[in-house]
Amino acid sequence: MNSIILQQPGKIVFGENSVLQIADDNLIQSSKRILFLVASPLLNAVQPVWDKISSTDKQVVVIEYNFPGEPTFVQFDTLLNKSDYFRPDCIVGVGGGSVLDCAKLLAALTENTQRLEEVVGIGILNGRVKKLICVPTTSGTGSEMSPNAILLNEANETKSGIISPFLVPDVCYIDPVLTASLPASLTAETGMDALSHCIEAYTNKFAHPAVDTYALKGIELIAANLQKACENGQNMEARSALSLGSMYGGLCLGPVNTSAVHALSYGLGGKFHVSHGLANAILMPKVLHFNMSADPKRHAEVARALGVKIEGTDEEIALAGIEKIIKISKACGIPQRLTEIGITGEVLSELADIAMNVTRLLKNNPREVTKEDAIEIYKKLM
Amino acid sequence: MNSIILQQPGKIVFGENSVLQIADDNLIQSSKRILFLVASPLLNAVQPVWDKISSTDKQVVVIEYNFPGEPTFVQFDTLLNKSDYFRPDCIVGVGGGSVLDCAKLLAALTENTQRLEEVVGIGILNGRVKKLICVPTTSGTGSEMSPNAILLNEANETKSGIISPFLVPDVCYIDPVLTASLPASLTAETGMDALSHCIEAYTNKFAHPAVDTYALKGIELIAANLQKACENGQNMEARSALSLGSMYGGLCLGPVNTSAVHALSYGLGGKFHVSHGLANAILMPKVLHFNMSADPKRHAEVARALGVKIEGTDEEIALAGIEKIIKISKACGIPQRLTEIGITGEVLSELADIAMNVTRLLKNNPREVTKEDAIEIYKKLM
Repeated sequence: MNSIILQQPGKIVFGENSVLQIADDNLIQSSKRILFLVASPLLNAVQPVWDKISSTDKQVVVIEYNFPGEPTFVQFDTLLNKSDYFRPDCIVGVGGGSVLDCAKLLAALTENTQRLEEVVGIGILNGRVKKLICVPTTSGTGSEMSPNAILLNEANETKSGIISPFLVPDVCYIDPVLTASLPASLTAETGMDALSHCIEAYTNKFAHPAVDTYALKGIELIAANLQKACENGQNMEARSALSLGSMYGGLCLGPVNTSAVHALSYGLGGKFHVSHGLANAILMPKVLHFNMSADPKRHAEVARALGVKIEGTDEEIALAGIEKIIKISKACGIPQRLTEIGITGEVLSELADIAMNVTRLLKNNPREVTKEDAIEIYKKLM
Repeated sequence: MNSIILQQPGKIVFGENSVLQIADDNLIQSSKRILFLVASPLLNAVQPVWDKISSTDKQVVVIEYNFPGEPTFVQFDTLLNKSDYFRPDCIVGVGGGSVLDCAKLLAALTENTQRLEEVVGIGILNGRVKKLICVPTTSGTGSEMSPNAILLNEANETKSGIISPFLVPDVCYIDPVLTASLPASLTAETGMDALSHCIEAYTNKFAHPAVDTYALKGIELIAANLQKACENGQNMEARSALSLGSMYGGLCLGPVNTSAVHALSYGLGGKFHVSHGLANAILMPKVLHFNMSADPKRHAEVARALGVKIEGTDEEIALAGIEKIIKISKACGIPQRLTEIGITGEVLSELADIAMNVTRLLKNNPREVTKEDAIEIYKKLM
């Protein structure tokens, strides 16, 4: 087997109500100044944690995160100013991917000489001295497991990736209870995003057996539980399964990562502010349809993990897998066409241009994607 | 899902020839004084690594590890004296479970006020300031993934476990090439040990979905490849699969751990110096036979992962799984009876007494084991 680097938090606490254990974590216990960055809807759920910490000799600052959409460079700088002022030795991020990406970058850039603009790209970050705990509240972006942070550079309307091993958190608390209040639409979009992490890792040009294990199990868990969680957000069995599936999706991101689904969604997010999960959900079936000829066997294995039982050729099974994804997506209320989210024909060329620039993901795709291919895929979704 | 704590190295480099990358690892780069603890047969394979490091401004000391059998407290102290004298800031262990257990404890106890005798037990270690890289050369004990170290206390002839989150390495390099020179007998014994880690985690009273994924995949990989690797040590596909399966077995140890197979083997190792893997291999079928009535479904799922294809009741499938284990074990040349390794009837009661003291593992067993049960299991292996 080829050499691969798996990076993950050294400690993952998984399970219902695990968030309440944070106050006793070694990382908190060995810190004096702790900064919480918390998404607004989670403030009440996490308050007992910082109340407990504040009752000791530790200093706690809580920053409420309430920016809409993907975080921008300017928004991040306002957070960084607050963090620089407080000088924490531990950062705790509680929220979806945007919040966690910001928490990860705060841990790296607080009291650092490097500025955000300088660290965009792969492996440029010079280190991280602040301890970092991530608590995901969606299932999910997988940010809590990954070395990636994606922010929106408003200067050029493009999403910018900061990729560094220093961005992998030290510790994660994955508590399905925190996802119970997530509305069905967000459950669906973030769940489809997690599904695409697994599928794009398994069908990846650089797929690896050590990551395949996570990818297939993630596909199985998400496919079997996403609709249930959308129908009843309080179904803790489904929520737990999604949290685990999303964790596996996150573990795929560092070593293998995603491919054309994510690349083609870049423009939808960066330029048209379509939410990340929704963009991926709409694109996934048509991109898989485009890709499957490059590796019918792996696409058939994805279909099996999705729960497809039919017998037939790899192509037939793979196609049934794509149908299954569409079925789940529709059942969860996700629009199936770009026109439904306000995308018109005249922007497709621009979207394709943006996608062509995401070479760090396109290089992973099992089949080469030209600009014309990208436009064709977008067109099929009109 | 219940709350569970997964602890693992934050960085795992997996794949053929990955060991050659160690010299460039961030952990080495940020260290000035590096201590290598290397099993004798691996000295040549790893020499290029320390040669490269030594050619910089860093100081390297290499200690050859050549103690036979399980390491004893006295043996460990001789290593600790050397390490205390050198004052390394990073320890690199290269070898099987004994070497890695010693490397882990060196990283924790070098220049520490706590002594080995004081830290036996769960969670007593006060920390670890030395950085720690583990490089397994068997597949395997899983020590490179786990918070456990097991040494032999010669004063009372018992194996003593030191269990602490601080014993989980920072970084692991898992290079299947390093296992290619392992003789067939050691390949078989260590492989059966890894298999028992997976099976005892999956059938465990405290089994958890987040660990089941590792357990089932580990069973599948080991069952499909152990005989191949024993027949041809140079079969790198089989060696790679075993390395991955063993890694998964190791990941089961911290959060869930083993149960009665390992407990009943304690006396065989501690008192009669039977190798750890061999003791587990001989015991496994009869212990599983004893256990299966407590959870036929899970034992049948183990059988499926082992490759059993028959239809039938859970009990029938589970039984076929046990037969499959015996078949693999025999094909790999492992003795099937305690009498074959010199154990006689008169020591069975003493062995059972020792097993009964391993409550930290017996509590995990799906079925309660009394002293009489233990003797009965040993008797069936005479």
